[in-house]
Amino acid sequence: MEPIAPTGPVTTTVAMDAITAARRRAEALGALVSIAVVDAGGNLKAFLRMDGAEIAGPILAIDKAFTAVATRSATHELAGFTQPGQPLFGLHTGAGGRFVIYGGGVPIVAGSEVVGAVGVSGAADVQHDIECATAGAAVLS
Amino acid sequence: MEPIAPTGPVTTTVAMDAITAARRRAEALGALVSIAVVDAGGNLKAFLRMDGAEIAGPILAIDKAFTAVATRSATHELAGFTQPGQPLFGLHTGAGGRFVIYGGGVPIVAGSEVVGAVGVSGAADVQHDIECATAGAAVLS
Amino acid sequence: MEPIAPTGPVTTTVAMDAITAARRRAEALGALVSIAVVDAGGNLKAFLRMDGAEIAGPILAIDKAFTAVATRSATHELAGFTQPGQPLFGLHTGAGGRFVIYGGGVPIVAGSEVVGAVGVSGAADVQHDIECATAGAAVLS
Amino acid sequence: MEPIAPTGPVTTTVAMDAITAARRRAEALGALVSIAVVDAGGNLKAFLRMDGAEIAGPILAIDKAFTAVATRSATHELAGFTQPGQPLFGLHTGAGGRFVIYGGGVPIVAGSEVVGAVGVSGAADVQHDIECATAGAAVLS
Repeated sequence: MEPIAPTGPVTTTVAMDAITAARRRAEALGALVSIAVVDAGGNLKAFLRMDGAEIAGPILAIDKAFTAVATRSATHELAGFTQPGQPLFGLHTGAGGRFVIYGGGVPIVAGSEVVGAVGVSGAADVQHDIECATAGAAVLS
Repeated sequence: MEPIAPTGPVTTTVAMDAITAARRRAEALGALVSIAVVDAGGNLKAFLRMDGAEIAGPILAIDKAFTAVATRSATHELAGFTQPGQPLFGLHTGAGGRFVIYGGGVPIVAGSEVVGAVGVSGAADVQHDIECATAGAAVLS
Repeated sequence: MEPIAPTGPVTTTVAMDAITAARRRAEALGALVSIAVVDAGGNLKAFLRMDGAEIAGPILAIDKAFTAVATRSATHELAGFTQPGQPLFGLHTGAGGRFVIYGGGVPIVAGSEVVGAVGVSGAADVQHDIECATAGAAVLS
Repeated sequence: MEPIAPTGPVTTTVAMDAITAARRRAEALGALVSIAVVDAGGNLKAFLRMDGAEIAGPILAIDKAFTAVATRSATHELAGFTQPGQPLFGLHTGAGGRFVIYGGGVPIVAGSEVVGAVGVSGAADVQHDIECATAGAAVLS
């Protein structure tokens, strides 16, 4: 048999549970969102765009999740460091513009390690994106 | 017969009417603009660059229309949220730099749905771009 | 209430059913794959990378699905037309390199319209990718 | 008054006439296509995607027109020079993948000069794309 790719803590089951948790939170908030789950390598594991959610969602949810795992930070925590005059101003244009510096990307943490991330985009209020992503990322807690 | 692509509310007739409406407004304002119409999927349906309009127009008008339908927002409404210190600062570099956060992209709304958008670029005064796009996007109202 | 994005025939239910059908076929074949579902506009609706599937999967499965809906063709049917000396040689570098001209992208057809597509990537044998995508795309048949 | 952009032979009237001519030919052939017109600078002047035409059309029609004016060649004439082993093999990946080396892009010629081009994409038979683009490009003949 040929060798396969390794699977970390973000298994299919975990990823689908994260999407379900984020989606339930969105439904409770009356928000229509896209939800992306990436693994520790920053590679997409699972994704869902809810019916009626805007088409910016696939782009932004995936990039939020990528940013969260790549920087080991919730994307809303990056905002302060990346404003004009702050230490990391300019980060948002990095990775070909893939780094997102506003809310909606939250790392999935297992023990002492960032093992993946959830990205959520599409709510009219970015706080709702953050809430949904946080609910999804709590899947291993 | 092989299957065809579906056509939503933004038909050829609607798209050409939107361009005509935007163009008439531009002529009334003495502005020279490019006008783009996209459908609900963000794909270009029709475009016109007026004689004498600048060549930034094709890029910006199309990206304004894309941004408006992708985010379900007029692009001038994004400006407030995307300034330094505001909740969505950094949006403008997303989608490979395609997101536009100043005026000239306006969604086309039919009932409760965003079914397309009009993007206008090229006026010396961005308020004129907004006026033209708004006139075009009213095509289904 | 602000207007929402329209939902076509590829609803969340349909997309998840397509992923499940493709995944079951993969399991029956002993293949480890990524599965992407896009709507008629070419925008991602749902995605899953099976445990152990290679990380090229997210890129290729999404681009296969995009190609299938954009060209209204199964991607393996494009292969013949796009070889050196054939009428569409060179297609594979279009759309910023997103067009895929080998198997694994299959349109979802409803009546006379292409309403979405399924893209599958990762099997050691591309015929298995095609079989899985075909199983997924049959979801509306 | 501020200076404006120059307008060459491909005026709004000419561009719309070219689109109309290409569209009529498509209707006569039973083809559903996208039609793009660019000026001598390679910049988009006008565009229309017919109802039911595939969404690869905007990308490919625009790039075919760009290629035709940029190389002063109908894109189907490039095919022979750009096959493996031929003098310009590799052209298709140039301009970030924008160069198209199969049929559907035809220069608009006025006197001794290439003053623009028409690009057509979407027909099931590439010969129909060529026929439509040729009909459109004849607008100044």
